[in-house]
Amino acid sequence: MNKLYVVGIGPGAYEDMTVRAVKTLEDCQVIAGYTVYVDLVRKYFPEKEFLTTPMRQETVRCRMALEKACEGKTVAMVCSGDAGVYGMAGVLLELCADYPQIQVEVVPGVTAAVSGAAILGAPLMHDFAVISLSDLMTPWELIEKRLRAAAAADFAVCIYNPSSKKRADYLKRACEIMLEYREGSNLCGIVNRIGREGMSSSICTLEELCSMQTDMFTTVFIGNSVTKTVKEKLVTPRGYKFQ
Amino acid sequence: MNKLYVVGIGPGAYEDMTVRAVKTLEDCQVIAGYTVYVDLVRKYFPEKEFLTTPMRQETVRCRMALEKACEGKTVAMVCSGDAGVYGMAGVLLELCADYPQIQVEVVPGVTAAVSGAAILGAPLMHDFAVISLSDLMTPWELIEKRLRAAAAADFAVCIYNPSSKKRADYLKRACEIMLEYREGSNLCGIVNRIGREGMSSSICTLEELCSMQTDMFTTVFIGNSVTKTVKEKLVTPRGYKFQ
Repeated sequence: MNKLYVVGIGPGAYEDMTVRAVKTLEDCQVIAGYTVYVDLVRKYFPEKEFLTTPMRQETVRCRMALEKACEGKTVAMVCSGDAGVYGMAGVLLELCADYPQIQVEVVPGVTAAVSGAAILGAPLMHDFAVISLSDLMTPWELIEKRLRAAAAADFAVCIYNPSSKKRADYLKRACEIMLEYREGSNLCGIVNRIGREGMSSSICTLEELCSMQTDMFTTVFIGNSVTKTVKEKLVTPRGYKFQ
Repeated sequence: MNKLYVVGIGPGAYEDMTVRAVKTLEDCQVIAGYTVYVDLVRKYFPEKEFLTTPMRQETVRCRMALEKACEGKTVAMVCSGDAGVYGMAGVLLELCADYPQIQVEVVPGVTAAVSGAAILGAPLMHDFAVISLSDLMTPWELIEKRLRAAAAADFAVCIYNPSSKKRADYLKRACEIMLEYREGSNLCGIVNRIGREGMSSSICTLEELCSMQTDMFTTVFIGNSVTKTVKEKLVTPRGYKFQ
């Protein structure tokens, strides 16, 4: 049985890969993935064969990787963050039903909820929800239902894909929904380009978040009702009593 | 300004640490933490000074680490998984308000939601909620409210701390709440001792999950309404159409 590895490379820097991810990429023959993600690792593994496709060609990319694995090559498909959180692990596992000789193994990585939270402080210390605002494959009604549920039950929330050129006002719409349940002063944070060149982050209120500029490299954090700042870091307390 | 690092070491194996976590532990003078977690890394960094406290002494442990950093030592506090998800990042950031000369830096790691999902397949490929069933510091009513919200809005759910000796029936109670909103056939999975000796995992239905044996080393996954199995792996589809 040939193995195809789907590897979460974390936010982007070499140091943020797990030792297992590094070893998997060292040991494979072919590194496949979306061009932008492959370019993040290419310089560390220059001798590999690379297989890339542009954005939105996810299923084509996965089929290419599976075909390559069928040829007997050891293939690693790279994803930013974790492969199992809005990454390629799901599609590869679904498609591999058509390739009986291939076994897909997921090599976990540090997803943006976790790496972004570390930059801001500890906004996800208590129960949290992870929601993508991309409605390419999910009806907006379901996204809105989940935002309402998370807001009403006082989850901390991490938002992936807060906006894109075509969805410029989605974060604003999400904030307006949250504001039906939460105070305008509810603390939030955003991180741009986590772990990559030009990284930036800021802490703001939910009201201010409505008009923040974000793009597809932004991860958004909405604290719960007790989230606070300590020394300019965002902290959602878990409830420890201090002497 | 002295730095105190709070380091997520991932599920437990050396290979599942990030390169940054390894470097941080290599470069520090003192490794602090709960005895069980320190024992996971001790053999890889035998020449360090170790500072451990038993379970339930979280704030004592954090104060000890902060005092040690005040003496001018470089200290790394280790947590299993990620330090910012039910770990020590929050307490340290809160307590460091009392230590103006100390800056706390969070080194992110692979949390159990992500590492456990990778073992099972890809159950968290779509929007998901992370909920701890520990009511030591959170009223059960709030836990129940969050379970209901996540169940009703069709989130995939990852449950931390599903049970302990004192809370033997909590997972059963959580499943019964989920069953008010979900089919008994809703697919679920559990992973015990992720990445450590004696790891085991299984896939079951929500109905079956009610009577599963779990302990404090178990992570529980409840799929959403479209979660399925492919070649014995649990997959929550994101919605890609396949040719």
